[in-house]
Amino acid sequence: MTEPALPAKALVDALRGEARRAPESGIVEVMNHGRLREGVIPLWAGEGDMPTPAFVAEAATRSLAAGETFYTWQRGIPELRQALARYHARLYGRPFSPEEFFITGSGMQAIAIALAMTAGAGDEVVIPTPSWPNAAAAAGILGARAVEVPMGFGNEGWTFPHDRLVAAIGPHSRALFIVSPSNPTGWTATRDELGAILKLARRHGLWIIADETYARFWYGDGERAPSFLDVMEGEDRILFVNTFSKNWAMTGWRIGWIAADPSLGQVIENLIQYATSGVAAFMQRAAVVALERGEGFVAHQIARARRGRDIMCRALAATGRCRFAVPMGAFYLLFAVDGETDTRGLALRLIDEAGVGLAPGTAFGAGGEGFLRLCFARNAEQLETAGRLLTAALSR
Amino acid sequence: MTEPALPAKALVDALRGEARRAPESGIVEVMNHGRLREGVIPLWAGEGDMPTPAFVAEAATRSLAAGETFYTWQRGIPELRQALARYHARLYGRPFSPEEFFITGSGMQAIAIALAMTAGAGDEVVIPTPSWPNAAAAAGILGARAVEVPMGFGNEGWTFPHDRLVAAIGPHSRALFIVSPSNPTGWTATRDELGAILKLARRHGLWIIADETYARFWYGDGERAPSFLDVMEGEDRILFVNTFSKNWAMTGWRIGWIAADPSLGQVIENLIQYATSGVAAFMQRAAVVALERGEGFVAHQIARARRGRDIMCRALAATGRCRFAVPMGAFYLLFAVDGETDTRGLALRLIDEAGVGLAPGTAFGAGGEGFLRLCFARNAEQLETAGRLLTAALSR
Repeated sequence: MTEPALPAKALVDALRGEARRAPESGIVEVMNHGRLREGVIPLWAGEGDMPTPAFVAEAATRSLAAGETFYTWQRGIPELRQALARYHARLYGRPFSPEEFFITGSGMQAIAIALAMTAGAGDEVVIPTPSWPNAAAAAGILGARAVEVPMGFGNEGWTFPHDRLVAAIGPHSRALFIVSPSNPTGWTATRDELGAILKLARRHGLWIIADETYARFWYGDGERAPSFLDVMEGEDRILFVNTFSKNWAMTGWRIGWIAADPSLGQVIENLIQYATSGVAAFMQRAAVVALERGEGFVAHQIARARRGRDIMCRALAATGRCRFAVPMGAFYLLFAVDGETDTRGLALRLIDEAGVGLAPGTAFGAGGEGFLRLCFARNAEQLETAGRLLTAALSR
Repeated sequence: MTEPALPAKALVDALRGEARRAPESGIVEVMNHGRLREGVIPLWAGEGDMPTPAFVAEAATRSLAAGETFYTWQRGIPELRQALARYHARLYGRPFSPEEFFITGSGMQAIAIALAMTAGAGDEVVIPTPSWPNAAAAAGILGARAVEVPMGFGNEGWTFPHDRLVAAIGPHSRALFIVSPSNPTGWTATRDELGAILKLARRHGLWIIADETYARFWYGDGERAPSFLDVMEGEDRILFVNTFSKNWAMTGWRIGWIAADPSLGQVIENLIQYATSGVAAFMQRAAVVALERGEGFVAHQIARARRGRDIMCRALAATGRCRFAVPMGAFYLLFAVDGETDTRGLALRLIDEAGVGLAPGTAFGAGGEGFLRLCFARNAEQLETAGRLLTAALSR
């Protein structure tokens, strides 16, 4: 090769700006810091301590042994789409069609596809924060801009920033990204709040990307949190994104779904095709079993999370320095520590010095600054230990 | 809800244009047409008839049984990145670092990420066609434009359109997408041609996205096709995309990899995080076994494909109506049928009337018009049958 290379420019500087500027996940950063340290109690990620139940994993094993290793339907195997329709019918009290469901390679992919369906270069996606950060980052990779609207936090706990949301909507707004129950705050929209958000979306012709991943982890009345499914009508522009990760302890599998109007089916199929071209059939067999036989496990997980919530709220209250709202849903506690502003540094220190892994609030957008997030979907004994360690480390 | 919906507009029309316009895969379209028809010999997709070898699948089963169902490294488990480094060292005769490899949720995802790294709204990706269509579609979803440059086809078989490529490069060009050995033509770049393409990319500051999926399915001398790895130097802007699908009969698994300079690692990790957030660890365990113990299986597959190539070339020659170049690599035969211009219609008819599933050349871009593609990575007996059926259906 005699052709000279272009004037020296680091390879990374030759990349597209939107890719180069995609932020490192603030959660993964602390996980990478502590992953190989012995004995750290990992409350940083959004996952529990139980592996996938054996009866679920074994369905994948049987499928693999039967040779289901070929390409399959881009929208998902019919059996899984049917099982999702039955699951939703049970949970939401009305019929659903399998044609409303699309299997994705993780809840994250469901979000990335919903974003690609609604927003591109020059568009804006409005996101109340603190919020799980990946949606904003995925929007950025598409060339869209995430507009963060800080939630309120005060004596009433976390409150939905309706007026600030109205003010943030502009001519380039295309979608609202709403997580309820919320990761990381635990805030959960009431039915009235969902109705008000929907009204706003209708008025401005916006899509709602509704992340209801934590619908089952709900500590109020009834067996699930309020849902946009309770207030929407046929022609409303809502894309639901969800995952098998949390309910069925399948975080490592990377399998989720989109629920949407069947008229959007061909577009969703195409976007799946050009992202990963579908999900392994043997994984989908396991997901069918999770939906059909997993209710006992889900109930067990929810009871455990409820107990974990109590343990961790008690431990943080005992520090005398932590401010937080008792979460109504999901399985996280987001808390501020008086006098601590650099919570990223604090999170790294707590890994090294207290042996407890937390995620810094800065990982969840501007609204998360000054906070730390912990996950309480773990066994009580370990949480009691983590609580003692945190109380000791954080008390003055 | 008393707020009236916006003036009636079909939901699909409210979607982002780039999503709405993503084309239906011309391959999936014929597969969906014929998938449930009894007895159709499926030569439409890029997959063979053998399931994943049991010794590979069983590694996933063991990992699942051991409870490896949690989140894992976004770049891939260290063991798999190390195994890829060893595999490349064996095949390309020089050392590789594990830091050069990134595990993706399919070869398709490797391509989507490589595109997101290099091209966005207003940018152009130059693609010689006929070519596997998904790269062009994925570029479109990012807001970029695929510029197709038709390959030559004549007495010398398929020829690389170097001059037309030069003419197609303009101020908005960001990347060249080069598939060698080519799906669907079987054309395989010589080392000199790769050098010339690289020279061109250097001169214009373009990235090369090098899809060398079919490197092992090579019917010339040596155990692999020529590679950009043979001609590149350290600072060259090349992103390699690859997959476990073909060599190890893992099409349904959705697992692939990117090979790139380690300095791009954080960007690639971030793009994986915001696309699907990694690949199941239990899948990666199987991929390690494929790399370390799969050479016998790969050799068997290549021998089978070589025989399949001979069978199908003979059958098509016997029609007296088919024009094709004997493929030097990959496992497809792309052929034209005298007097048939609507090959999409012909593909649908061959499913219904001859019981053979082919993909229409139109699925592979403008350069594929008037052609049909068949996959010959199957057992000889079935290919002999398919050959007879095609000879009968296509002979005058």
